[in-house]
Amino acid sequence: LASQRLTHFPRLYKALDANELDGVIGTSAENVVYLSGFWAMTQWARRTPQTYVLMPAQGKGEAAIVTSSGLIDLIADQKPWIDDVRRYGYFQLDRNESVALCDKDLAQLRLMETPEYAGPVEALVAAIRDNGLERSKLGIDEVSISVQCFDQLCDALPDVTFVRSASLLQRVRAVKTPEEIARLRRAAQIGEMSIDAAFAISAEGVSELDFMREFNRTTVSHDGLPVSICIGCGERSAMSNAQPSERALKIGDAIRFDVGGRYQHYRSDISRCGFFGEPGEQIRRYHNALHRGVLRAYDVIKPGVVVSNVFNAVMETVRAEGLPHYQRNHVGHGIGIDGYDYPNVAPNEKGVLEEGMVLCIETPYYELGLAGLQVEDMLLVTADGAETFMSTDGALRIIEP
Amino acid sequence: LASQRLTHFPRLYKALDANELDGVIGTSAENVVYLSGFWAMTQWARRTPQTYVLMPAQGKGEAAIVTSSGLIDLIADQKPWIDDVRRYGYFQLDRNESVALCDKDLAQLRLMETPEYAGPVEALVAAIRDNGLERSKLGIDEVSISVQCFDQLCDALPDVTFVRSASLLQRVRAVKTPEEIARLRRAAQIGEMSIDAAFAISAEGVSELDFMREFNRTTVSHDGLPVSICIGCGERSAMSNAQPSERALKIGDAIRFDVGGRYQHYRSDISRCGFFGEPGEQIRRYHNALHRGVLRAYDVIKPGVVVSNVFNAVMETVRAEGLPHYQRNHVGHGIGIDGYDYPNVAPNEKGVLEEGMVLCIETPYYELGLAGLQVEDMLLVTADGAETFMSTDGALRIIEP
Repeated sequence: LASQRLTHFPRLYKALDANELDGVIGTSAENVVYLSGFWAMTQWARRTPQTYVLMPAQGKGEAAIVTSSGLIDLIADQKPWIDDVRRYGYFQLDRNESVALCDKDLAQLRLMETPEYAGPVEALVAAIRDNGLERSKLGIDEVSISVQCFDQLCDALPDVTFVRSASLLQRVRAVKTPEEIARLRRAAQIGEMSIDAAFAISAEGVSELDFMREFNRTTVSHDGLPVSICIGCGERSAMSNAQPSERALKIGDAIRFDVGGRYQHYRSDISRCGFFGEPGEQIRRYHNALHRGVLRAYDVIKPGVVVSNVFNAVMETVRAEGLPHYQRNHVGHGIGIDGYDYPNVAPNEKGVLEEGMVLCIETPYYELGLAGLQVEDMLLVTADGAETFMSTDGALRIIEP
Repeated sequence: LASQRLTHFPRLYKALDANELDGVIGTSAENVVYLSGFWAMTQWARRTPQTYVLMPAQGKGEAAIVTSSGLIDLIADQKPWIDDVRRYGYFQLDRNESVALCDKDLAQLRLMETPEYAGPVEALVAAIRDNGLERSKLGIDEVSISVQCFDQLCDALPDVTFVRSASLLQRVRAVKTPEEIARLRRAAQIGEMSIDAAFAISAEGVSELDFMREFNRTTVSHDGLPVSICIGCGERSAMSNAQPSERALKIGDAIRFDVGGRYQHYRSDISRCGFFGEPGEQIRRYHNALHRGVLRAYDVIKPGVVVSNVFNAVMETVRAEGLPHYQRNHVGHGIGIDGYDYPNVAPNEKGVLEEGMVLCIETPYYELGLAGLQVEDMLLVTADGAETFMSTDGALRIIEP
């Protein structure tokens, strides 16, 4: 069923029940895709356009999409599994009466024949009322509904109790469906291919911007999109968010990639490092320690493990393997349709790992005057352990000048 | 002065005065860059990370940036003009004591020696108090401060009156500074080069995805980023948001590009159409009418003109030139760091054009069963007229198969 592709319904229904919610309303671009499969372009390109998904709890009604009339073509094209689509606002669509239309065009026409609501809140209120939920307790993803729309919603439905639920949805999203896992795996592959392509142009005088252009060209050639691209050479490798500059590669430089992209709306976040020339003993030892820290995570990750234990195992390994003063506030995080999903791999995280979680495990180290070094892998929590998404070695790549 | 590069201070101060505001707080990624020049990566990559700019009214205090300790390297690298930077949260940064550090690293160290606030609100409250604004009326960009943080802010400063000011900032941003104009001009150039590169691969069997890959490769090769890429061939050209698919080009297809990218954080939004083979008389006439509508805008645009008059002139021209039933709710919009800046070129917009506004003027037409056709130019309102950013003709490109 297409409806099962992204949303983990058992988890969603359980979370709604546990919080005594009659439903939840997704408002962010990420949660709209997650709950419905519908990619509403304007939400991804700007911050204020409003598209919602009303998702009733099990047995409490039918899901509905609320979106602008100007996005109806995307409904016809993407065919999300939710049939109840409420559109708002004027959009002009002409029709050549003299020819037969294709199925997509007919679907678009049918959608344009549905009532035109004045605005997103009017449409959402109608969907809530039509489901008999006008005296209910509804979760609302508070991240992307505008404050003006939220005020209007509360005024229109005085008997609904709205509960902020962005974090509930983040928890639901933590365990991925097979389709989500496939997309994340591909996102990671594209990231690695793009890093490899960039490393391949290493030569004296090549700039961080040159590396980025090569990285980005490879990413878009595989239908990915660059999102957060940090590439630092030499002293700039120690800048945690190094934004590519004209800084030219020279012998004795570390090269740090910490790069994130998007593939079919799902994110990657990986890191690999190289060294241009012969690294000294300290760089080798430090990077090896960081790498072993990430590898250690594969040994300890499995369902039921308390997340902070992963943090502790990684930190102890890095310290024991050659970086005794290593300090971090986290060594990884969930990843999915958002760049940071639950859980944060941190010392205070007492939740447990579950099968189907996809994690980034990372050991960045930034030492001003020395280098920035980092390994970051993406992996899947399986029934009895962890399965990497990476096809390249996390070891420091020594590049002959 | 670096401080003059993006923010139009005379307009900002005038708007604050007119609204009796003692200052304004930027919270969205766009407004943070606009007010400070500071590009806070995490805000651009995700929706929830919090970075703010406190901008007091003229003579009411010193501007301040509030950001995460983990982004301090970007402050050191980008050197925004605002000196008062308040950081929150833990971030581990090591230092090699045995070597002299470069200026950027020293700047980072100095910033890390400033107090570490517990969270973004604590840091913002301190900046407000240190400016003596704890009993004032402050505008707040309501778009991107989280509701949790806004609640906390109101609790911490019960004597401050907060006024939602995203639309005030949008109005301020409508008139661009020379640096903004230069970036927008370059963004448009990159968009056109990318469209040209895509058109250049036209051949029977080339898919919309092939067009997109070529478009995107060209964009990233010029340090742009693709944002909203609509490319439709044949019947799919009539889908207003056509997302590139495997649909292969064949003789008799219209090809519609409506594409938006980003360059140095500033947006492009342009449209050009082609026809693969010999278009019939109707397609030629319709496209010509749409093109003449856009060209008409150049005749009427100048400072002081009421925006709805531009709408009317464009609509009348399209109708008179061969598309008598043409209907639209707008034929353009401002563009800047956001994809839609003030004004919307619409029949009810009674504001007037000002020198330094940058506008998109567009005449899309979607006819199911025929084609989607569109021209969209970016232009600058000058002292006595309009100056195009476009270097390619908006006419329909006839592509020989």
